[in-house]
Amino acid sequence: MSECTITFLPHERTITVSEGESLIRAALQAGVHINASCGGEGVCGKCRVLIEKGSVSEGISERLSKEDVDKGYRLACLVKVIEDVTIRIPVESSMDKSVMNLQTTPRRTASIQQMDFESLKEEGLFIPPVEKIFLTLSPPNPQNNMPDVTRLIEYLKLEANEHKLELTLPVIRKLPGTMRESDFQLTVTMIRPVRSDGKNLIINVQSGDTTKANYAVAMDIGTTTIYGQLIDLSTGECLAEAGDFNGQISYGEDVITRIIYAEKPGGLEKLQEVVVGTINSVLEKIVRQSKVDREDISTITFSGNTTMTQLFLQIDPRNIRRAPYVPTATLYPPFAAATVGVDINEHAIALIYPQVSSFVGGDIVAGVMGSGMYRKEELTLFLDIGTNAELVVGNKDWLACTACSAGPAFEGGGIEFGMRAAKGAIEDFSLDPVTFEPMIFTIGDVRPKGICGSGLITMAAVMFEMGLINNRGKFNRDLGTPRVRKSNYVWEYVIAWKDETQFDRDIVLTEPDLDNLIRAKGAIYSGCMTLLEEVGLSLDMVEHIILAGGFGSYIDLEKAMVLGLLPEVDPERVTFIGNGSLMGARMSSLTNRIRQDVVSVTQRMTNFELSETPSYMDNYIAAMFLPHTEIEKFPRLQARMKARGK
Amino acid sequence: MSECTITFLPHERTITVSEGESLIRAALQAGVHINASCGGEGVCGKCRVLIEKGSVSEGISERLSKEDVDKGYRLACLVKVIEDVTIRIPVESSMDKSVMNLQTTPRRTASIQQMDFESLKEEGLFIPPVEKIFLTLSPPNPQNNMPDVTRLIEYLKLEANEHKLELTLPVIRKLPGTMRESDFQLTVTMIRPVRSDGKNLIINVQSGDTTKANYAVAMDIGTTTIYGQLIDLSTGECLAEAGDFNGQISYGEDVITRIIYAEKPGGLEKLQEVVVGTINSVLEKIVRQSKVDREDISTITFSGNTTMTQLFLQIDPRNIRRAPYVPTATLYPPFAAATVGVDINEHAIALIYPQVSSFVGGDIVAGVMGSGMYRKEELTLFLDIGTNAELVVGNKDWLACTACSAGPAFEGGGIEFGMRAAKGAIEDFSLDPVTFEPMIFTIGDVRPKGICGSGLITMAAVMFEMGLINNRGKFNRDLGTPRVRKSNYVWEYVIAWKDETQFDRDIVLTEPDLDNLIRAKGAIYSGCMTLLEEVGLSLDMVEHIILAGGFGSYIDLEKAMVLGLLPEVDPERVTFIGNGSLMGARMSSLTNRIRQDVVSVTQRMTNFELSETPSYMDNYIAAMFLPHTEIEKFPRLQARMKARGK
Repeated sequence: MSECTITFLPHERTITVSEGESLIRAALQAGVHINASCGGEGVCGKCRVLIEKGSVSEGISERLSKEDVDKGYRLACLVKVIEDVTIRIPVESSMDKSVMNLQTTPRRTASIQQMDFESLKEEGLFIPPVEKIFLTLSPPNPQNNMPDVTRLIEYLKLEANEHKLELTLPVIRKLPGTMRESDFQLTVTMIRPVRSDGKNLIINVQSGDTTKANYAVAMDIGTTTIYGQLIDLSTGECLAEAGDFNGQISYGEDVITRIIYAEKPGGLEKLQEVVVGTINSVLEKIVRQSKVDREDISTITFSGNTTMTQLFLQIDPRNIRRAPYVPTATLYPPFAAATVGVDINEHAIALIYPQVSSFVGGDIVAGVMGSGMYRKEELTLFLDIGTNAELVVGNKDWLACTACSAGPAFEGGGIEFGMRAAKGAIEDFSLDPVTFEPMIFTIGDVRPKGICGSGLITMAAVMFEMGLINNRGKFNRDLGTPRVRKSNYVWEYVIAWKDETQFDRDIVLTEPDLDNLIRAKGAIYSGCMTLLEEVGLSLDMVEHIILAGGFGSYIDLEKAMVLGLLPEVDPERVTFIGNGSLMGARMSSLTNRIRQDVVSVTQRMTNFELSETPSYMDNYIAAMFLPHTEIEKFPRLQARMKARGK
Repeated sequence: MSECTITFLPHERTITVSEGESLIRAALQAGVHINASCGGEGVCGKCRVLIEKGSVSEGISERLSKEDVDKGYRLACLVKVIEDVTIRIPVESSMDKSVMNLQTTPRRTASIQQMDFESLKEEGLFIPPVEKIFLTLSPPNPQNNMPDVTRLIEYLKLEANEHKLELTLPVIRKLPGTMRESDFQLTVTMIRPVRSDGKNLIINVQSGDTTKANYAVAMDIGTTTIYGQLIDLSTGECLAEAGDFNGQISYGEDVITRIIYAEKPGGLEKLQEVVVGTINSVLEKIVRQSKVDREDISTITFSGNTTMTQLFLQIDPRNIRRAPYVPTATLYPPFAAATVGVDINEHAIALIYPQVSSFVGGDIVAGVMGSGMYRKEELTLFLDIGTNAELVVGNKDWLACTACSAGPAFEGGGIEFGMRAAKGAIEDFSLDPVTFEPMIFTIGDVRPKGICGSGLITMAAVMFEMGLINNRGKFNRDLGTPRVRKSNYVWEYVIAWKDETQFDRDIVLTEPDLDNLIRAKGAIYSGCMTLLEEVGLSLDMVEHIILAGGFGSYIDLEKAMVLGLLPEVDPERVTFIGNGSLMGARMSSLTNRIRQDVVSVTQRMTNFELSETPSYMDNYIAAMFLPHTEIEKFPRLQARMKARGK
């Protein structure tokens, strides 16, 4: 696909985008505001622009008169860019370029950090926990009629240099037939031990040479969604990936309500059954997609937070939510996945990611392992932001972690028009610096029906930088726009009028919404500060920030820094690993070394309970401003604010 | 109970017996023959004796005239001895005492070797594989909220010096509740590893102090019967013992027919289900008898021959019966007994006695372990005689073993009136040296209905020493007794006339019966000889013979030596351990050291397949005589024969 350069006038900004890009999204990227409130459906007709040079595809709507079309006007939200063009944005009021350029910084998401499989290979660490070995045994004869198991083990010892071997009872049952139906040529499947002095457990035997058919499953058991990957252990490739909503959602949105449900009679069993149901449906999808025989899947690595892990293993989670917040276990033994109801062959082994504490679970440990931060020199801050935010700081020598309750604001909870990131959710936002008219973008380019977490962050940050709200999240009541109004004793800003939405109501952002957002971001920021203080570090010593979790992929880094959700650092130092939990599960499916390392990593992850850390409350209160009481911690923002005040 | 001395005339033999003993059995013990063919029911009236001095209880029957009774005649089979007496046996023909004293040696069974629990204790080896430890943990608090499992393990490490600990998933599930319902005072049940560098597996946790309630089950899975013992691990005592016929009998009497059944579709599953049914009924009996809570039973040690073991574990046994006779495994991993259907708590671990070969199984290994022969200096020969005879020779430094097929003669098979040792079976026998009239003893002192294995051995040995049969098992046709006759072309001896039996037929012993017996004893004797030769030893180097198995308890040692079933040694050097399999299972329930030792014992038990040992056939042919081609190997018999010939 070729690239096209767009010049926006009168701003005199240019941006290069891929052919076929939507013009209005290109404007957003360039930091150019165009009024727009219908999400790109072309119904509000506000985003009229003039094509001054070059031609575009589409962009014509009944909202434009024939005359306007002939003059070269188009609706920006409908235009696809097909060549280099110059676009003029009609500026209704007179204003100079300096005002126009008071736009906030361009949208900036974190660069994606892929799973580092190549370096794994280079380091010789691509040795999966499960290995298949093909053997040609000599058949028994009267002079050598040792038992079948002994014959197998002797061969492995002498010919394959494998020692400390142990067979499970089902394998012993299968062995005599398998040996003989294949003329004593067979493939053994062996699980490597975690400890180097442990045993190699033979979990399966198959006729003939099946060493090429060696698969593992990695599965992230999230509170909201469960993702699985089917991994080819001979190549390291991911053959299929699928996800589904965790069926437990019907029993409570968050971990606390699920724990409460689990405390009811039969509740724990029900939640276990339901989560296994979702796991099985995900498994079914990836098996079907990849056309792999379930018989050849030998391990399933599960990672989930402490509550999800305990519910999956049917371990009463009640003490997780009660002070002093005691989880049941850190490490879990490997066990046959089928014994907890997973629809897989009886030999397949479930490997469970270890937990650190009640609120720093296997998903975070998996992220730490998958991201490789535990093996690097550089000081890294790892954040997984959701209803709970988990924070890990450290490097190859030490690790410290904590968790804080951000509340549900980032997932749309406690926000009047909040919603999950789904079709119709406002995900991006810009504001005319003079008229305070909005430009909105929705997921799916349809009329808006709510605001998702990343949209909320961008919206609040833009409003703050534009002076629509002050540093305590209160609207400037004197701007003369009808969009800022008081309704039922509450001040609010109208993002979309009711005729532009999917329903018959105005979509608004209220001061209580902003208050919830500030509490959420304050909790996370002060969590970071407190954790760093506890280990005697300051923010400027952090060399790398890793964002994990679905939320992190959408977040506009600069906007998050404007709000003081993230500390203000060079965005180049921030990377996004996506579903760190799944990445970690996949990495340890491929690398037994990670299974070995994770034991010591878990042991040296010092956990801080913020409720037991006196400085946390001070840090929290200081973080209850936009961006923070100490604005000097945000020098780039401070500079922009100064420029704007000029 | 007081002792009584009986003097038999005209033999001038005395014997001391317990008050209440049957007179006729006392005569047998003293080597005094009294004609008797009705098994002690008092109906044949042949055992008339005269009470010359002292008085007796009972002994009066309608078979005696009032006159005879007044004279002091009684029926010996009905008389109970109550004080010192002198008894005269009516001698119908004139013969001197030297003839009368041509009786064979008195009945001599092996002395019983009890389980040597005391020396186990003295050696400090009374450390069962399963141990209970009571702990008082400190409850969690905000400064110490480590996971429950970590809290437990830390305590065990620091306070109980227990390391390498692992918990099963069910225990992890149970732990949080157990800890809290007992105010953090709890008892853990731990399985010790076999290898000293292995892991201690925590299989159960219970509230409060339950260390006194620590039980194990030992179970012998025999082809015919299954015996179980319930053992108190705090005292070493056996609290209950029970047995039952192995339900598999309906599917075949011996291992070969069961293997054939197992090869049919569904056959293996059926046999597994049936044997577990018997195991559960025995378990139910010993649990009920001992009033122990099943929850407190933590291990079940199973010992059985290779076929029984494989059927119990549902492992296809087909290769056991096919050359080159390959069993599936030697060692089996511990596993949860409930997973194979045993009616026990999910935490109870099944421990399986290892096998050596297809025909030297866990029952024999258990006998070797239980008898302690593997720990002694003295060279010991261990024999377990049944349809198959298993032989082990060696000491603490080395062990060699083999098995030979004796055929079913000792269990009543292939013998016209053969039967198992049950009520009505002739179990002992004597012969009048002049008239060749028999004295018979039946189990239960009822009219005879057949001959059991030990009866057969005694009968054949007595007949041989009395010259009724020759060294090839053929009857002397010239004795003039109507009891030796030819019927349907077959020579036979009438043991009981039809009016003395339980049915309307004469009970006879035929030449084909004797032929089968000679084959059986020849197989065993030549097995012993061949095994000894293979390890470069001769019989006179054997310091101790151990007999195991139900059969061994009844066998008349001297008679067995007369036949050449056993090598002729000083009977003092022979001991009987009864059910060696059960003894071994019990010993290793009490002593983890035995579980550790058994691995190396099994490995150093060199197995000889007689079919692959050329000298076996020569030895077998040489053993097809009574007692053997080389009579000089039986010096005591030779001396008696010489004395008799005089």
